[in-house]
Amino acid sequence: MQFAIVLYDRFTALDAVGPYETLGRLPDSETVFVAEHTGPVRNDSGNLALVAEKTLAEVPHPDVLVVPGGPGQTQQMENAALLDWIRTADATSTWTTSVCTGSLLLAAAGLLEGRRATSHWLALEELGKYGAEPTGERVVTDGKYVTAAGVSSGIDMGLALLGRISGDFVAQAVQLGIEYDPRPPYDAGSPEKAPADVTEFMRSRSRFILGHEQPT
Amino acid sequence: MQFAIVLYDRFTALDAVGPYETLGRLPDSETVFVAEHTGPVRNDSGNLALVAEKTLAEVPHPDVLVVPGGPGQTQQMENAALLDWIRTADATSTWTTSVCTGSLLLAAAGLLEGRRATSHWLALEELGKYGAEPTGERVVTDGKYVTAAGVSSGIDMGLALLGRISGDFVAQAVQLGIEYDPRPPYDAGSPEKAPADVTEFMRSRSRFILGHEQPT
Repeated sequence: MQFAIVLYDRFTALDAVGPYETLGRLPDSETVFVAEHTGPVRNDSGNLALVAEKTLAEVPHPDVLVVPGGPGQTQQMENAALLDWIRTADATSTWTTSVCTGSLLLAAAGLLEGRRATSHWLALEELGKYGAEPTGERVVTDGKYVTAAGVSSGIDMGLALLGRISGDFVAQAVQLGIEYDPRPPYDAGSPEKAPADVTEFMRSRSRFILGHEQPT
Repeated sequence: MQFAIVLYDRFTALDAVGPYETLGRLPDSETVFVAEHTGPVRNDSGNLALVAEKTLAEVPHPDVLVVPGGPGQTQQMENAALLDWIRTADATSTWTTSVCTGSLLLAAAGLLEGRRATSHWLALEELGKYGAEPTGERVVTDGKYVTAAGVSSGIDMGLALLGRISGDFVAQAVQLGIEYDPRPPYDAGSPEKAPADVTEFMRSRSRFILGHEQPT
């Protein structure tokens, strides 16, 4: 089974690494980081680069594609080469997945029309504009399309998908291997749970978080 | 405030990226990925490389050092250059931290003598041999030393430390930004919670997980 994780300029690192550290631990599978060009691809903050091992063209038919989000996603919405690759890969994939605003790229490629899907909480409205039916759930499966909420949700998505692919034992072994027994020191992980002033602050920064504007 | 995250051959990616996506979002801070040599550093599975931007020598006095774990840690236990750097950086750091078996490197550098600390659940016994007092907690703070349990615990550690450094508001804003509202699809994240056969299976593989032996 081949997993392809897409990288592009100003992606969010944990969006890619969460699914990687779960799905990528499936025995006898291959995981490839792909991008338009091989070599280092810089993340949203610019101080971390992950290396793309193969070009999109070299990995046309992964069994599972994973599209991370990040502020750079807004520019990729007009990248015909990437959207074409997503459509081509999706045509033969077993599972087509995204984390965070990666679902906007799946939607822009025309794959989420009329489908239940999710995204970063700040991007749910925009997701609806592309024809998807946004839900507030953390991981949404509609047919072969699995979309996850913001950034850290890719870990939950990866484990859930592992369970579908290989059964509970493998998924639980991976969970135990990465000791995923979360104990957040605060209960502020969703706009409903966070203190109102924290949620308001993050809303006021949504144009930066979603990449519509760059912080000066 | 400068954060230095150490990379070395066969580190575990999420050990580094969890603290990165939490601590690294502190306003007006700088995060640098460091290694003995600059350039791509391959992880435990060999199919992902993160780029080290600076050498250890170029970042002698970070305010916070983060030492990830991974199977490659066993080799680093005998790397005098790395252990020397850890000791030097620790001499002036505000916080000295680790994720997973990264705590074994702190211990080997002589920093955890008589201190309460943690590590990956499979490495707690070994941690005790280096003079630390292992606990089963997910994040352990003893003085300026903050150690976290296996792999994914670096996210909890990063948020807890952010709270100490900058207060609850910043930590909660970061938690909301990465939408860290975990919903693991299984409850198998610790050896006590996982089904007995899953725990037994992972125990049987500990020599590979801890890097004492490479899978053939």
